[in-house]
Amino acid sequence: MSEATERDLVADLLEGDHRALARTITKIENRSPGYRDLVSALHEHTGNAAVVGITGSPGAGKSTLVDKLAVTYRERGLTVGVIAVDPSSPYTGGSVLGDRIRMASNVGDMDVFFRSMSARGTLGGLSTATGDAIKALDAFGKDVILVETVGAGQNEVDVVKTADSVVVLVQPGSGDDVQMLKAGILEIGDVFVVNKADMDGADRTVSELEEMIHMRDDPTAKLNTGHHAQPTVADAGSGGDEATDADGDGTASWTPAVVETVATTGEGVEALIETLADHDEYLDESGERRRKARTRAAEEIRTLLRNDTADLLERELARHGGVESLAASVVDRETDPYSVADRVVEPLRDCLDARDE
Amino acid sequence: MSEATERDLVADLLEGDHRALARTITKIENRSPGYRDLVSALHEHTGNAAVVGITGSPGAGKSTLVDKLAVTYRERGLTVGVIAVDPSSPYTGGSVLGDRIRMASNVGDMDVFFRSMSARGTLGGLSTATGDAIKALDAFGKDVILVETVGAGQNEVDVVKTADSVVVLVQPGSGDDVQMLKAGILEIGDVFVVNKADMDGADRTVSELEEMIHMRDDPTAKLNTGHHAQPTVADAGSGGDEATDADGDGTASWTPAVVETVATTGEGVEALIETLADHDEYLDESGERRRKARTRAAEEIRTLLRNDTADLLERELARHGGVESLAASVVDRETDPYSVADRVVEPLRDCLDARDE
Repeated sequence: MSEATERDLVADLLEGDHRALARTITKIENRSPGYRDLVSALHEHTGNAAVVGITGSPGAGKSTLVDKLAVTYRERGLTVGVIAVDPSSPYTGGSVLGDRIRMASNVGDMDVFFRSMSARGTLGGLSTATGDAIKALDAFGKDVILVETVGAGQNEVDVVKTADSVVVLVQPGSGDDVQMLKAGILEIGDVFVVNKADMDGADRTVSELEEMIHMRDDPTAKLNTGHHAQPTVADAGSGGDEATDADGDGTASWTPAVVETVATTGEGVEALIETLADHDEYLDESGERRRKARTRAAEEIRTLLRNDTADLLERELARHGGVESLAASVVDRETDPYSVADRVVEPLRDCLDARDE
Repeated sequence: MSEATERDLVADLLEGDHRALARTITKIENRSPGYRDLVSALHEHTGNAAVVGITGSPGAGKSTLVDKLAVTYRERGLTVGVIAVDPSSPYTGGSVLGDRIRMASNVGDMDVFFRSMSARGTLGGLSTATGDAIKALDAFGKDVILVETVGAGQNEVDVVKTADSVVVLVQPGSGDDVQMLKAGILEIGDVFVVNKADMDGADRTVSELEEMIHMRDDPTAKLNTGHHAQPTVADAGSGGDEATDADGDGTASWTPAVVETVATTGEGVEALIETLADHDEYLDESGERRRKARTRAAEEIRTLLRNDTADLLERELARHGGVESLAASVVDRETDPYSVADRVVEPLRDCLDARDE
């Protein structure tokens, strides 16, 4: 695609053309030639959307909840984009169609732009692609972007890290969920949703979650005994009319909230949206939104550098006979991995040293 | 440490000095100056040990089984090294002592060399350190090296990939385990052990595992209905006296075996050792051992290159004001991650291009 066509695509997207948005995300997902320039051009138009990540174990009701959230946001007059990410699947086709039909039947509204993304064999590249797709939706002008993951493993954690607020869905009474929460999901949740709250054991799951949140915070933190943990927001010194400063140290803090929903009926969805609005306010007043954005930008830079350098390394490896042949020499004990690494990296180091002199 | 002292350390290790072995692994774990040269020097003396990785969910009885395996191998006159890896823990101290006492009480034999390793904050570096520690034990002359992991997540998968044979422990009747098997553990298991086989539900777990193994193999594969799936080994054309060739295509194949054990009593441990011996034979006769070694060597080379280049990239990032300041510019929309990456990587590419001209 020529530069002129890319400029057209960006212009069309910024003017609100859904087809241009879809084509842009396809280019991002496929890493088509010119996709870097596209994302570069969109970047300055981003920063206005509320990005909400939604994760949790399969069967907890994520997609139903996301549908209900999308409908409710639309009823409030906000535009919505949804990205459903499946890190474990190398395929996109089938689920895209299935999901689109699902969304269409519930929402019937073109302003909910829905898109599935999958790993497609691009190891470690999915969170970059998801982040870039979020930028496209953000630049397009979507008010709310919901990023839904299929499972709850490390890849899912990486994906939801691209969001400002992370919702973790838990199904009542499943020991399975507690296990997964222990494995690192607890650390990333800003809001925990006990879905299917009409099921037996929901109250116990809520208590367990609140206990875990309490344990996660410092030992002096006060345990919220109610089901809905109240966030405490402070406006660092001045004008904090609604703000409370729990720690008394002038900084806003956030205690993860636990919300109960029944996604199938929509019960609790309004409360969840209010809690997310509270978290959004906290992000601004505490300066946390900017800190998160900086951390994310630094990670994006490092990831791109790693990927770009990997290409250079492949070229250097080829100069030394290729990795296959080097690996065979290692297996035959003619050389060893450290010696190979030294031999390949040395010219790069020398090159840069010579330039610096 | 001077080069002369490193040569002494290597010489002492190769002569069978357990203290030199312990000091070498400590240097590997701490990435002490000179550790690269140490591992380089040891590499040519490796390739003689059988390396067995053992993973599975916490509570499945891994450490008890590893102890029993170690004792049984010793009774057969083989020397044994054990590396217990905890990717989730940044600490080593406590567990080392605890584990060593555990081993000593059961084994009471210096020829079982036991070592704990933990993440210590070296992100992604643990599998490299584990691989290097295995080389030290291998060069030392240990016949069998057991690599035990604490949990069963992605990091554990990376760690057990350093082994030739992978044993996955499953506890009967825990839905939790089936969940984890789905998350990628199934793909890496050569032998599945249903431990605590005297528990209720053990038979069902065995059947479920065999079903999953069947599903994992191609649809034409025949499901082994017995509890102990028989491996089929073929000697690619000639001299395969014990060999069977299930596919009839002249290549040996391996169907993951399911073995039942009661680690606390030692029941089934002999059968597990026989199955591992079968797998070892399969690895040689099929050429799979060499293929695995090559894949592993290629991965080691790539990992080292990534790490070494990361250092160079940090220097380049510093030349451009550092990643923190670049990230702030991205958040302020003065630039974007792709433009930053281009700016940082360009000099490296130019440098190499100039050299090639």
